[in-house]
Formats: sequence, C-alpha cells, structure tokens
Amino acid sequence: MHLAMIEDTIIPAEKLDPAYLDRAIYFGDGVYEVMQSYNGKIFALEEHLNRLANSLAAIKITDVDINQVRSRVLKAFETAAIPHAKIYFHITRGSAPRNHTWDDGLKPNFFLTVTELENFTEQKTKGIALATHPDWRWKRCDIKSLNLLPNVLAMNEAAKKGCGEAILVEENGLITEGAGSAFFAVFAKKLQTSPLSANILPSITRMFVIKAAKNLGIEVIEKSFTPAKAASADELFIAVSTKDIVPAVKFDGRIIGNGKPGKVTKMLISEFQAFYDAIPDTQ
Amino acid sequence: MHLAMIEDTIIPAEKLDPAYLDRAIYFGDGVYEVMQSYNGKIFALEEHLNRLANSLAAIKITDVDINQVRSRVLKAFETAAIPHAKIYFHITRGSAPRNHTWDDGLKPNFFLTVTELENFTEQKTKGIALATHPDWRWKRCDIKSLNLLPNVLAMNEAAKKGCGEAILVEENGLITEGAGSAFFAVFAKKLQTSPLSANILPSITRMFVIKAAKNLGIEVIEKSFTPAKAASADELFIAVSTKDIVPAVKFDGRIIGNGKPGKVTKMLISEFQAFYDAIPDTQ
Repeated sequence: MHLAMIEDTIIPAEKLDPAYLDRAIYFGDGVYEVMQSYNGKIFALEEHLNRLANSLAAIKITDVDINQVRSRVLKAFETAAIPHAKIYFHITRGSAPRNHTWDDGLKPNFFLTVTELENFTEQKTKGIALATHPDWRWKRCDIKSLNLLPNVLAMNEAAKKGCGEAILVEENGLITEGAGSAFFAVFAKKLQTSPLSANILPSITRMFVIKAAKNLGIEVIEKSFTPAKAASADELFIAVSTKDIVPAVKFDGRIIGNGKPGKVTKMLISEFQAFYDAIPDTQ
Repeated sequence: MHLAMIEDTIIPAEKLDPAYLDRAIYFGDGVYEVMQSYNGKIFALEEHLNRLANSLAAIKITDVDINQVRSRVLKAFETAAIPHAKIYFHITRGSAPRNHTWDDGLKPNFFLTVTELENFTEQKTKGIALATHPDWRWKRCDIKSLNLLPNVLAMNEAAKKGCGEAILVEENGLITEGAGSAFFAVFAKKLQTSPLSANILPSITRMFVIKAAKNLGIEVIEKSFTPAKAASADELFIAVSTKDIVPAVKFDGRIIGNGKPGKVTKMLISEFQAFYDAIPDTQ
C-alpha cells in the first residue's frame, strides 16, 4: 500500500494505525458475544465462551485461547465494578492490508466494552411492539459474526414504526427469529419457537427460556410459523442476553392477547430469575 | 460506556480512539468501491461514484456529498502518483458506541487507500482455476456493502484448492456470480451471465464486458446457469475492476475448452483495452 486517506487527510501507509486495517472493517471478519451480569456475577459466561469457540471454528479463526478470553472478560468486568453490566466483546481475524484471503499467521484482535446495563423495567412490564421485515441475512446465522448490516437495517425500519424489535421472515414465509433476539409465541399454553438451523443463532437466552419452560411443565414446540400465525398468538415475547424475556403486545399493528404481557410470559420471567440467583460465586 | 479493553489493556471509555467505534467494525455498516487507474487516469470513476450513491441510498446513509468523494479520490490519486493504481475506499455510517439503531446525526467516515496495481499478466495469459461454493451471502448483494464474510470464506476455500476465485451457487442450484467478480461463460460463441437482481452486484466491469461483446457483435444472454452447464462451456472468464477480464481454464477440476484462454475471451480482452485508451483526460 502506498498511501491512505482518512477524511481529507493523506497519510503514508506505514503511519496508518493498525486499527484502520482490522479485517472487521473491510469484511466483518470476526465474531462477537454480548453478556450481562447480575449482582456482580456474569450470567452464562461458560455458555457464551462455548458459543464463541464454535463461531471462531466456523470461520476458521484458529489461534484464540478461550482461557485467555475468559481471563480478559473477568479482568475487565472486575475493573469496571458495575454489578449490572453489559459486556460486549469481539474477536476479529486481525489487521492486515485489505485482501479477501488471509495469511494464517495473522494475530486475532480482541476488543471489549463494559457498560452499565440499561433499565428495561418499562419494556418488560408494558411490553413492546414488533414489526416484521424480510430476513436479508446471510445463510450462516448460526455463526455470531460481525456481518450485521441486514439486522441493523431491519431494526431501523422497526424503530421507525415505533417497534422495539424486527421479526425476520424468510422467503418461504416463515419466521426465523428477531433481528437481535430469539422469538417465542404461546399458543394454547404451549411455547413455540423456530428450531435451530443454519439460519438461526443458537441463542443462550433461548436455551434458558426453554429450560425455564420445562421447569414449569410448559410444553415447548420447536417448529417455525408464519407472521399470520404469530399475529394470532395468545402471547408473544423476545429473548435476548441483555434483557432476558421482553413481552410483545403488538405484532405488525395487531394487538396480541389483551394488549398486556401474558400470563405464561410472566411465569417464564419469574422462573428465569432463578437462573440469575443460581449464578455460582466461583468467578 | 464505562471502559474498553484492547487485547490486555484496559482503557477508560472517553480515551478510546473513535476508530474503534466505527460502525463498520460492529456491523459492517458501510459501503465501498474499488477502482483501477490506467496510465495515470482512473477508469470508470463516474460509474463507480454512481454505484456508490446507490449503495449509500440503499442502506440510508444520507449525508454524503458525492462531489466531495470525487475530490478526495482525485486528490489521493494525484498525491500517490501511481499510473497503474488500485484505489479502494469505503464510507461507513460513522463512529458511535455500539447500538444497532443509529442516530441520524451521525457523521459518515471516509477511508481510502491507493496501492500499486499488481501485475496480473500471468493470470490473464494462462488463465485461472475456479471452484464452486454455496452462496452464503445476504439477500441484497446489489448493495456493495462491507458485509463480506461469506465472500472471504468462499475465496479462502477456493484458494486452498489452488483456485483464483470462488463461483457462488444458490440453493436453487444456479450460479449467481464470483465471490469478488462477475462470471461469464461462452456457449457456441454466445456470451452468458446471470441477469442483474437483488442477488447480483451491478458490476461496472460486467457492464463494460457486455459493451465490448456488443461492439464485437457477440450475442449476450443474461440468464442464470448451473455449475454443470458452466463445466461444459467452451470458455469461462471472470470480470473484476482491478483485472478486467481473467480467463478461467478449470472449473471444479474440469478442464474448460483446450485448457487455454479461449478465442472469444481473448477478443473481449483486446476490445476492453479500447475502453482504457478512451478514458478522458478531463480528470
């Protein structure tokens, strides 16, 4: 490379900060995780680290020590000293002049932030509205990659309609999941969600919701359904790491149930609390 | 945000360089262009700027002055003083703490590099090998976005097989295009390529190849075809901004034609040269 230009400033290539050469910028060539902590303890850290390892393997970033990642996460969390925190981190393939194919010797980049977790009490007690959007994502959404433009565009459209989340619909007319969440419906006291596939993120919160349902003796059906069916559900909710369960009371403008968070949803929210209370102290 | 961590270093949020907050890193939230210059003049600059404007509009990055982009490109190119250069630039939605939805007041980021163009004479005279890969890309490949992980993964698989490009195949069994190129076949002296759609990048080089074919009186059929049909072609080639036409002589291990660049391909390469010779001096 001969020169670079940032805004109006021309810079000799050799003076360019490596941050500008991160393959995440050029290609979205990296994976990420988002976790929350509860009362000073990180929730489901090992589950997130396991998923991270799967994502890294799937895109062939091989040179990452998960124990080192765990240490870094714990060190940053300890330093931040925020009891209810949102912890985001990504690992990218590394920094190099732009070239689609990569050099196996590339050193992965690690970046993390800790933020005070927002208070979602209002969303959780009143419920949110949802809007459908075509699922424009790539065909490996089981990998938690940094290629998130379709999610961003869908969420922006939903937000413009006053909705808290976009529910993505495949060309075959079936719902996959939320743009940034898992999606659940309650039909006749049974819980339904899409089965895991290459098009669905293996959501940690989804896993815990299913566990909570089983604890409560609620049947769980893993089978995709259409927006029309969703609009006719008794209850709807989304599940996301930073908020766990958020009831939905409107779907593409249609009122769900009586327009308030449903009974099964509220039972699941209560049951979910037990998972937080059971986070081991061993961190 | 409270704190950030880069590798093992913890940084207070307010000291973080904005480069680390570029939405391109978190979401691939930006678009790009790659151009080449020939004998000190940029090829198809206006066509690339028009496509850029379309990509920006499609992802709703609204606050970009294309005239300013043109000035920056020309200034960087002039400063680099490389007659045969590769010019890459991207425009992202801007830098902000990570949040899927964006603030409309965000200032887009501009980043450009100028590099000496590689010499592709060997590829162009001997031809390259191609390997198919499932098309895992998102459903809006008409937008030249920074979400390129599926392209990167496909190209890496192709490179491992000694191939110079991956040819992407949709679930319906039809070829879309190359992971970083347009794809053409010659059947009985007629040129065939996929028609433009939401799954295909409106490639500038593709446009010029079609123009060259018309100049030569070669019929052009815009209709998708299968890998099996591609393997039976008289000639194959890819088209890409930095190399224009590169003949392909192997497709998934099958020899194409007599294993050498074909006659129609060579005619098109010659005809393409006229476009370079005709770049106006008005830059």
